[in-house]
Amino acid sequence: MANRVGIVGHSGYSGAELLRILNRHPHAEPVLLDHRESAPSAAIRRHHPLLRLECTPEAVESAGLALVFLATAAEVSMELAPAMLHAGTRVVDLSGAFRLGTLERYSTWYEQLHTQPELLAEAVYGLPEFCRERIPSARLVANPGCYPTAANLAIRPLLQADAIDRPCGIVCDAKSGVSGAGRKPNLTTSFCEVTANFSAYSILNHRHVPEVLLVSGMEEHEFSFTAQLLPLDRGILETIYFRAPGIASAEALLEIYEKCYAAEPFIRLYNPGHMPDLHGVARTNFCDIGVTFDSRSGRGVVVSAIDNLGKGAAGQAVQNMNLMLGYPETAGLL
Amino acid sequence: MANRVGIVGHSGYSGAELLRILNRHPHAEPVLLDHRESAPSAAIRRHHPLLRLECTPEAVESAGLALVFLATAAEVSMELAPAMLHAGTRVVDLSGAFRLGTLERYSTWYEQLHTQPELLAEAVYGLPEFCRERIPSARLVANPGCYPTAANLAIRPLLQADAIDRPCGIVCDAKSGVSGAGRKPNLTTSFCEVTANFSAYSILNHRHVPEVLLVSGMEEHEFSFTAQLLPLDRGILETIYFRAPGIASAEALLEIYEKCYAAEPFIRLYNPGHMPDLHGVARTNFCDIGVTFDSRSGRGVVVSAIDNLGKGAAGQAVQNMNLMLGYPETAGLL
Amino acid sequence: MANRVGIVGHSGYSGAELLRILNRHPHAEPVLLDHRESAPSAAIRRHHPLLRLECTPEAVESAGLALVFLATAAEVSMELAPAMLHAGTRVVDLSGAFRLGTLERYSTWYEQLHTQPELLAEAVYGLPEFCRERIPSARLVANPGCYPTAANLAIRPLLQADAIDRPCGIVCDAKSGVSGAGRKPNLTTSFCEVTANFSAYSILNHRHVPEVLLVSGMEEHEFSFTAQLLPLDRGILETIYFRAPGIASAEALLEIYEKCYAAEPFIRLYNPGHMPDLHGVARTNFCDIGVTFDSRSGRGVVVSAIDNLGKGAAGQAVQNMNLMLGYPETAGLL
Amino acid sequence: MANRVGIVGHSGYSGAELLRILNRHPHAEPVLLDHRESAPSAAIRRHHPLLRLECTPEAVESAGLALVFLATAAEVSMELAPAMLHAGTRVVDLSGAFRLGTLERYSTWYEQLHTQPELLAEAVYGLPEFCRERIPSARLVANPGCYPTAANLAIRPLLQADAIDRPCGIVCDAKSGVSGAGRKPNLTTSFCEVTANFSAYSILNHRHVPEVLLVSGMEEHEFSFTAQLLPLDRGILETIYFRAPGIASAEALLEIYEKCYAAEPFIRLYNPGHMPDLHGVARTNFCDIGVTFDSRSGRGVVVSAIDNLGKGAAGQAVQNMNLMLGYPETAGLL
Repeated sequence: MANRVGIVGHSGYSGAELLRILNRHPHAEPVLLDHRESAPSAAIRRHHPLLRLECTPEAVESAGLALVFLATAAEVSMELAPAMLHAGTRVVDLSGAFRLGTLERYSTWYEQLHTQPELLAEAVYGLPEFCRERIPSARLVANPGCYPTAANLAIRPLLQADAIDRPCGIVCDAKSGVSGAGRKPNLTTSFCEVTANFSAYSILNHRHVPEVLLVSGMEEHEFSFTAQLLPLDRGILETIYFRAPGIASAEALLEIYEKCYAAEPFIRLYNPGHMPDLHGVARTNFCDIGVTFDSRSGRGVVVSAIDNLGKGAAGQAVQNMNLMLGYPETAGLL
Repeated sequence: MANRVGIVGHSGYSGAELLRILNRHPHAEPVLLDHRESAPSAAIRRHHPLLRLECTPEAVESAGLALVFLATAAEVSMELAPAMLHAGTRVVDLSGAFRLGTLERYSTWYEQLHTQPELLAEAVYGLPEFCRERIPSARLVANPGCYPTAANLAIRPLLQADAIDRPCGIVCDAKSGVSGAGRKPNLTTSFCEVTANFSAYSILNHRHVPEVLLVSGMEEHEFSFTAQLLPLDRGILETIYFRAPGIASAEALLEIYEKCYAAEPFIRLYNPGHMPDLHGVARTNFCDIGVTFDSRSGRGVVVSAIDNLGKGAAGQAVQNMNLMLGYPETAGLL
Repeated sequence: MANRVGIVGHSGYSGAELLRILNRHPHAEPVLLDHRESAPSAAIRRHHPLLRLECTPEAVESAGLALVFLATAAEVSMELAPAMLHAGTRVVDLSGAFRLGTLERYSTWYEQLHTQPELLAEAVYGLPEFCRERIPSARLVANPGCYPTAANLAIRPLLQADAIDRPCGIVCDAKSGVSGAGRKPNLTTSFCEVTANFSAYSILNHRHVPEVLLVSGMEEHEFSFTAQLLPLDRGILETIYFRAPGIASAEALLEIYEKCYAAEPFIRLYNPGHMPDLHGVARTNFCDIGVTFDSRSGRGVVVSAIDNLGKGAAGQAVQNMNLMLGYPETAGLL
Repeated sequence: MANRVGIVGHSGYSGAELLRILNRHPHAEPVLLDHRESAPSAAIRRHHPLLRLECTPEAVESAGLALVFLATAAEVSMELAPAMLHAGTRVVDLSGAFRLGTLERYSTWYEQLHTQPELLAEAVYGLPEFCRERIPSARLVANPGCYPTAANLAIRPLLQADAIDRPCGIVCDAKSGVSGAGRKPNLTTSFCEVTANFSAYSILNHRHVPEVLLVSGMEEHEFSFTAQLLPLDRGILETIYFRAPGIASAEALLEIYEKCYAAEPFIRLYNPGHMPDLHGVARTNFCDIGVTFDSRSGRGVVVSAIDNLGKGAAGQAVQNMNLMLGYPETAGLL
């Protein structure tokens, strides 16, 4: 018997990806929840004759939804999360609303006030590889941002192993496909502006930076992050530079990751000499990681690749749902 | 001495292309005219320290503009054209406002009323290859649509030569890059919707159809036209199918075009066995034409390629300006 | 219990797609068969620790393969098909080797001699929608070409219904993604030549034409076909033009298809006013069909879209395997 | 009167770009020199009825070529450069053959022996912004690599100003379009492998690294360089990270560049808050540079963008030709 789970924001790219994954999920059955949004496309209506409800506490309660995904903007998530929880369901929020733990951090990086301080404090950060024990019992999971997911999975093992030269810091040069910017039309993401182009934005001050600091344990001055827009629809690749004086070889660097991720179903490590690319992770929940090391100088480069809509959003949200509802962690994701 | 010419709509793709061409033109100097539009991009401001004026009759008159290009929507062109003419300048209008000759045709295909019937009657259709004699003395030139330019240059010679089986008609399967849809952001032209995609729109009822009928002399029931969106920024390629019972060979078919276009500087004909592509016409004012013919069955296929922003818009507009202001027809365009 | 099935040509795009589909198939387990081909990519090796054998009759026999897919060139298929059949397995051939029924047709369109005339005569054409009854008992199925699949599914219903004006014929303007040209590097399919480009090739004489004539019942002089290369990796969209004097409306035109395809799991019909695109069929086994009709003049346009690697190759091959091995026809394909 | 100049390697992308630029050059007239290469495309033949000669010393001498461009592989350049010089012409070599100054460096980074040690010692490195005085009298100019051009123009001013924390080094994360890999077909640059993909290669050991070390004055252990392949045809963008404890602000950082490049016609600096992109430099000889600085922590990020076929190859080669033949440095390049 499948449990019903709701999707708010199903007309966006993350919402559509949630629907695609859940339509194949062995234990969950998706229900579309309409909240001030455009109707789903004709294609979705025709080919997915799904249950569709107004996004109200009453509807959620009477439909007996076990969990609701909020694939919405932070302001909308702050409005809907308490209402959904009050209706007795659990919530995975894909926005940045509940990721940063404190009011100060939120107002600093999102430049707006947070309206739900108690839920902000209660929310569990949903990066299973590092927060798995708290997720099953959480009422509200803050699904990680796309850039921080790729960054933290590559960086935290290095800091845990105390391997890097911290005064020199870590450089994370990140590149993302256009779907990461959402589906709402604007000039920045229109075809003629993006095709055959490449550009940097939010250099050193991207709002995803604090998530990396929180999870990895770095200080802001140690972490240089640039976000850049690739002329493709989906995928994030981050190239991460550091100095690790105590490491002897690429194999020794890889070993740090192997120890950390031996039991992880969604982390794939590459042998030295090979590097991940975006084709390898497209439409998956994998994070692929490859390493290079120059033992003469102690410089290391790690490449981390995910699908921004997969492990970077909807895939990881379903992974969190699996943990919350007691399904096998990989259900619907392999 | 260069003459000053104005550009209204310089923040759009056709306007930017006009600016790019005129910046190299030996006889004309571009002036930006602001009309309810966003400021030019920082890049344009920094690298093109151009004269920039409000688009008012007074400014146009006192700046002594010889000609004004309207790279604006049809409604804006209907408003600005009389004002500009009254200020003593001449006008090349890139919109559809003045192409169709009669109020009836305009209201049928554009589904709105025309507010300038006298100018509509006066305007000269600016396809130099077929209307060259009337352009030099015109006050107002209606620059042709992008699809009709590629279509008419390929089709009218066939009808002039009385070569085709008219009851079977002509099929024109047209494909355009995204810049043809303008720069205003919308979902249809956003990157993630267009990339790796291809789709048909306005099948059999595109508003460019009447321009083809008017120039070529076909009847609507003889002309089947489909517009389709390519995942690239600029270029139009039209594949045109017909039956020509009286033609003996591909060479004979080509000869019809050679006779018609022997003196034309912007038409390039391909030898049988070769076909134009979009790379060949990108950023040019050329129309490239190739032919195939099956002499056993009398079926012909002609391929016509242009840059929709070049010969399909700004390039042709400058060609018209050259004719109107007495410059060499190819000035700034080779 | 899953049956083992072999894939020859697994390093090509169709072979890789077969592997992707079969890895999720509930009843079949893929085995890689190496025949003079490059090793599979590191990614395939790492993440798919599959059984891998030399492609010899002995290996096929001792592994007990129920069926072998030949995702190979026609010459290789002519060599391997008899050997595989002799080893007691059944064969789905994805090349053009066994599609055309007679030696004459094959030598005319493929410009080489056929070396297996008896198998050519025995092979069953594997378009399930029109040849379903002969497939289950076939030893050798000739999987249809990509272009003919999209064309025949759109055209044959019109001819069955005797709806079109045959002297005017049918125009099929076809556009394909680059993967249809195979994985072997050449200049025509290199990135810089294809990106931002569009071009026609094989106008009126493509070797896929005879498959359309055979299945639809048209004569060659009635069918004008152009193949064109889209700057995208996968997908075929065909725009089909005809005159149908006896049809009253788009709804009546659609009804022809509805009658024909009421029970078909892989044909999706669009309501008038909507048209398929390539995003809708990517990575599926669907053929999406939309119709437009001008009742004043009797002109019709039908758009047919498939994934050239899905319904146009590997997807349809698995559909044929399902019929041959007695699995549900949609197994692994929805 | 224009001087004739020869192009060897005109069928490649750099050679074609040389031809495109020289066809508009006011003082130079291009001549195609054939050396073991495929014929130029039909399009070049048809539309560029150029003088075309065998690439022999005799032909070069009798045609009176003032200069020859070698747009060839390093091995071919080592063979042709002495022959061309012996024939009395001067040479701009676009390969890596003559850039590294010493035999040891060449054999280390190119993994082959250098066959022309005297010419290697004689050659002048052709980065005009830093080597302008030696270029006019050079017989043989080694045109810089594409990646080092963008890197050195961004990095050397920082080292000249002694601004950076050298123990922490500089990270240069470089991204290039596919044309940088040449026109010869291979799987790595075929459309289906590149489109919708992004990947890193030659991490920390790219053969362009020593050019950066030589020009900038850095040591290898100070410079971490990664080359990455963008899904677009032309353009290089490099994101450069460093620590500059003595710098007070983004404006102060920019000032270092303004002092260095005040008189340079091909360097464009962006105001803080703006960053270059690849559209801005496509088909130009510009290098666009933008800066970001976090004054709290002393971390800086500089973005440098060029067209790899423009300032990264053919454009810069023509700039060098202009200096060598006494033309205005910007002739044909603005």
